[in-house]
Amino acid sequence: MGVTTKKLAILGSTGSIGQQVLDIVSNYSDIFSIVGLAGGRNTGLLATQIEQFHPKVVFSANRLELPNKTKMCSMEAIASDPEVDMVVVATTGKVGLAPTLAAIRAGKEIALANKEVLVMAGAIVMAEAKLHQVRILPIDSEHSAIFQCLNGKIGQVSKLILTASGGPFLHIPLTKLTDVTVDEALRHPTWKMGKKVTIDSATLMNKGMEAIEASWLFSIPLSKIEIVIHPQSIIHSLAEFVDGSVKAQLSIPDMRFAIQYALSYPERLANYRLPRIELPRLGSLTFEEIDFSMFPCLQLALEAGRKGGTYPAVLCAADEIAVELFLDKRIDFPQISQIIDKTLSLHQDKDNPTLQQILEADIWARNAALEILSKVN
Amino acid sequence: MGVTTKKLAILGSTGSIGQQVLDIVSNYSDIFSIVGLAGGRNTGLLATQIEQFHPKVVFSANRLELPNKTKMCSMEAIASDPEVDMVVVATTGKVGLAPTLAAIRAGKEIALANKEVLVMAGAIVMAEAKLHQVRILPIDSEHSAIFQCLNGKIGQVSKLILTASGGPFLHIPLTKLTDVTVDEALRHPTWKMGKKVTIDSATLMNKGMEAIEASWLFSIPLSKIEIVIHPQSIIHSLAEFVDGSVKAQLSIPDMRFAIQYALSYPERLANYRLPRIELPRLGSLTFEEIDFSMFPCLQLALEAGRKGGTYPAVLCAADEIAVELFLDKRIDFPQISQIIDKTLSLHQDKDNPTLQQILEADIWARNAALEILSKVN
Repeated sequence: MGVTTKKLAILGSTGSIGQQVLDIVSNYSDIFSIVGLAGGRNTGLLATQIEQFHPKVVFSANRLELPNKTKMCSMEAIASDPEVDMVVVATTGKVGLAPTLAAIRAGKEIALANKEVLVMAGAIVMAEAKLHQVRILPIDSEHSAIFQCLNGKIGQVSKLILTASGGPFLHIPLTKLTDVTVDEALRHPTWKMGKKVTIDSATLMNKGMEAIEASWLFSIPLSKIEIVIHPQSIIHSLAEFVDGSVKAQLSIPDMRFAIQYALSYPERLANYRLPRIELPRLGSLTFEEIDFSMFPCLQLALEAGRKGGTYPAVLCAADEIAVELFLDKRIDFPQISQIIDKTLSLHQDKDNPTLQQILEADIWARNAALEILSKVN
Repeated sequence: MGVTTKKLAILGSTGSIGQQVLDIVSNYSDIFSIVGLAGGRNTGLLATQIEQFHPKVVFSANRLELPNKTKMCSMEAIASDPEVDMVVVATTGKVGLAPTLAAIRAGKEIALANKEVLVMAGAIVMAEAKLHQVRILPIDSEHSAIFQCLNGKIGQVSKLILTASGGPFLHIPLTKLTDVTVDEALRHPTWKMGKKVTIDSATLMNKGMEAIEASWLFSIPLSKIEIVIHPQSIIHSLAEFVDGSVKAQLSIPDMRFAIQYALSYPERLANYRLPRIELPRLGSLTFEEIDFSMFPCLQLALEAGRKGGTYPAVLCAADEIAVELFLDKRIDFPQISQIIDKTLSLHQDKDNPTLQQILEADIWARNAALEILSKVN
């Protein structure tokens, strides 16, 4: 890396990924500096981050008093600020979509943790990235793994294999899941993550979204993406090449590996603070076929991905609503997939949708999901 | 690959690797053609290969009648024939050294399966390869795995991890090994290979030589090369990067993966004749720390590698003699390491040896090993 620092804007800086991004940044203050921060509801943490990293521009979902030199801005303005080199999109849900597009149009490098951006609008986002010659670097252990295995050579790939821990309810029959509590669903066996993505990992909705995201990111059809259960979360994903050779990326499950790689790409920064793999201490690495009948959310996601159009946006919106309802204890665990299923089945698709049509489908789906709830209860 | 074929010379075409190289070549006759073949004692097989592949130049260890258009040559002449693009060095022992150097000096790309070439004379061979800007592509599952994981970025590596199946005598105490038969030692649990390398795999001499070879091939000190037992031979080796991320290459144990990759590099050729990995059917992938006290040959190899000079050449020569004696049932299994140990301890090292000095050390060691035998028996 050069003598000047890489200047970052972090959207979603108070979330789980955002905090870990700042952990990496503070560890390499000679390499990275912060120009912009955008925080959600955790205003106290955002204030602390502002104090520590002195951003020039800030977005806050709530009212917040700023230091003299710091300016309040929209996320789009932060993402396209002339001083910014790279925008880290660590928001969740649809909120990251518009700022990501603004960043791409301003020619910023993107480090993307917000799955929904590509799931909802992959065609539009990738076309814009191509047009503006912008690199989209994945911050997700699975996509980072594949990115590291491919070294840009997607043409030689015969299939991608996404690994899934299977979440806390692997091997528990669907019929028993009506009784699981929010706390149980939030107890992920291998990864520490935010609440939304932890529930999505329990339903495997997360893995379905990752498959759609991988399809856009690596320009590969969904039919060439496999999902395999790997309960230990050590092998983060694999790529099989046309000659039958397979490459895998491994690490202790810690998001900072993928975050740091995206931030420092194409370099790798020595980091001995992160836990290292000692193969003989790992025990066994195992793999299981996925039983799709146990994970209706995964089926719904892959089906929405195959259909394309506005279906994936509806999937994301309905899932956001359903997971929120589950976290609020207003529905039980199996009802998450039921609400999403019903919403998707009511949807009237738009082929090759515009961004406007995608956002309309999102709003429609949120209302539809809530209406379905009102009829169920 | 272009419209013209890649023209190959195969040294050691009648050996296990040589035969598998020709299997790949015959599967891609539009991509590869054979200019030269060099065979060992299996003259019948060499004759068949000549009939099938119509080489221009041939070397045979024994007398052999050749077709009209085929010329008998030395291995060096074959390796530096103007028509040849790539020389596949699939010989074993020191016999590959001179022709490999001849090929490098003639600017040929090298596909190297003959470990001893780099173990004996790594400094000389790598310096010549650099001088003549020749690429050395490994044909060995471990080195091919690392080569595939690195994509040329050795600077970002913190350590290399070579996997070892542990051979047929993993977990069998040394004291019980006096009784093992040649047939038992030749029964490798995961790989089908030639006799010499199969015995070297049972003593783990093979793994020690691979570490030395990797050190030269990837310009990395031996101290940054780890060996770990992985009985399933699915992960062929790994590279750990400075950021703590680890990449691995996997395949069903079949040498043709590494052979084809070396032949087609930087392309990959679609090959659905080779068995593909199905992760859920693999069972467990496990790793164990190596118990060095169980594998004296491995210790001897690593020590010779650390000392450098002519020690590695003495190691190779003494091992060649000792393994031959074991295969001839003239010594028992533990005596393999004892003869090598004794030979090494009697050796007077030459620092920064010339090729001549290396070859002298080789001859000295062969005599010394036989003399040690005569005193033991």
